[in-house]
Amino acid sequence: MPGWALLLEYDGSPFVGWQRQATGLSVQSVLEAAAARLNGGRPVASVVAGRTDAGVHAEAQVVQIALPDTFSAATVRDALNYHMKPHPVAVLAASPAPPDWSARFSAIRRSYRYRILDRRARPALLAGRVWHARVRLDAAAMHAAAQLLLGRHDFTSFRAAACQATSPLRTLDRLDVRREGDIVEIVAEARSFLHHQVRNMVGSLELVGSGRWRAEDIARALAARDRAAAGPTAPAAGLCLTGIGYPSDPFSPDPG
Amino acid sequence: MPGWALLLEYDGSPFVGWQRQATGLSVQSVLEAAAARLNGGRPVASVVAGRTDAGVHAEAQVVQIALPDTFSAATVRDALNYHMKPHPVAVLAASPAPPDWSARFSAIRRSYRYRILDRRARPALLAGRVWHARVRLDAAAMHAAAQLLLGRHDFTSFRAAACQATSPLRTLDRLDVRREGDIVEIVAEARSFLHHQVRNMVGSLELVGSGRWRAEDIARALAARDRAAAGPTAPAAGLCLTGIGYPSDPFSPDPG
Repeated sequence: MPGWALLLEYDGSPFVGWQRQATGLSVQSVLEAAAARLNGGRPVASVVAGRTDAGVHAEAQVVQIALPDTFSAATVRDALNYHMKPHPVAVLAASPAPPDWSARFSAIRRSYRYRILDRRARPALLAGRVWHARVRLDAAAMHAAAQLLLGRHDFTSFRAAACQATSPLRTLDRLDVRREGDIVEIVAEARSFLHHQVRNMVGSLELVGSGRWRAEDIARALAARDRAAAGPTAPAAGLCLTGIGYPSDPFSPDPG
Repeated sequence: MPGWALLLEYDGSPFVGWQRQATGLSVQSVLEAAAARLNGGRPVASVVAGRTDAGVHAEAQVVQIALPDTFSAATVRDALNYHMKPHPVAVLAASPAPPDWSARFSAIRRSYRYRILDRRARPALLAGRVWHARVRLDAAAMHAAAQLLLGRHDFTSFRAAACQATSPLRTLDRLDVRREGDIVEIVAEARSFLHHQVRNMVGSLELVGSGRWRAEDIARALAARDRAAAGPTAPAAGLCLTGIGYPSDPFSPDPG
């Protein structure tokens, strides 16, 4: 590696998640199979900026892929898109990876959006894209409670049992909740997140929104450093990776 | 009839369109089958405000359905939603239809949104919801040209051969084009439209956006009163019925 930086959009619904697994089709396996077609059939390794679980979507995932630099950027983008058909994965942009750059370790910000549809009727147009809550949520109360999670904390209470990170310490930079019609939208930003952290925070905020918890319960759950003290994991369908931040954007031409 | 007024959302992708047909599943057949379940198995007729073609979506379709007024509004909404599972059709609201009201003939405004994704990569998250144009469109030029279609005209050039309306005269009240990121969004409003009128207008505006036509060509196409003089029919997937207007909103409680 360095190889190429790719900006990727995908609908997570039909996949077992980003990562290659024996149990089903992953975004990684679709991308790497397409890359191998470009590479004369030889396998191509990839590194992802933000691993996503089954059913989680991405508007702007970043992936580093070990393809030769003899291709043009347009060829990499268009040929990968051609070979990934008909899977709902698209390369929006391709750029030669900068020297010493890692899609994963050079990233300084991950951004996610979570959407809850809080109306009586189940979703028709947004099926598979939202969490359907059948009671109206208090988005302002959720936003106020969310602010108690900002900053550097031990997020053990919001961490999946399967999380492989060495430390439960993370710095949460943004957790905004606002209503847009029948949708409560939560925006989360941090340098990095623990496994299931966004979905677990949303699961607890939903308890606040539906009136079963107060803001203090969020602070108490955080302080407990115990997964059992926090709310349930919100469904995957509502989550979308919306961006990865780097000190310098790998998809912008160097202005220097 | 009067019966009930229903506000309906649906994903048009799996359907042959609104109208019942021998060739496949329609939104009408899904709704009427669910209504028959509520009605002790007896068939239930419906009248729709804006017929939609195969693949066309609706955020706020209005349908009148001949169910007894002995049900509560919540029962009509929730029971229809229950029986329509797992089809992507949802009743957002139900209200007893006012006396002398017709979902179709009382409507004084139909609103549609058409979306074109104009980027190189095919859609992943918006597959089936947009028209994919592979070249960047000039949305400002499209908007300027669109204004030439406003007002009362003979829209024969933008009318499907199969259109059953007695007159080709229509009054177009709004045709706005604006860019939002990689999406060109067209909003169209009129008391009523001819068959395929919105998609045919969009097909011609795309010729302006891609530089193959100038605004004058839109005026020329309109004046020709000849379908062959206008552009192609834009794909169904980009079209969504966003609202039906009535002199008084059947879903709002009477303020009087």
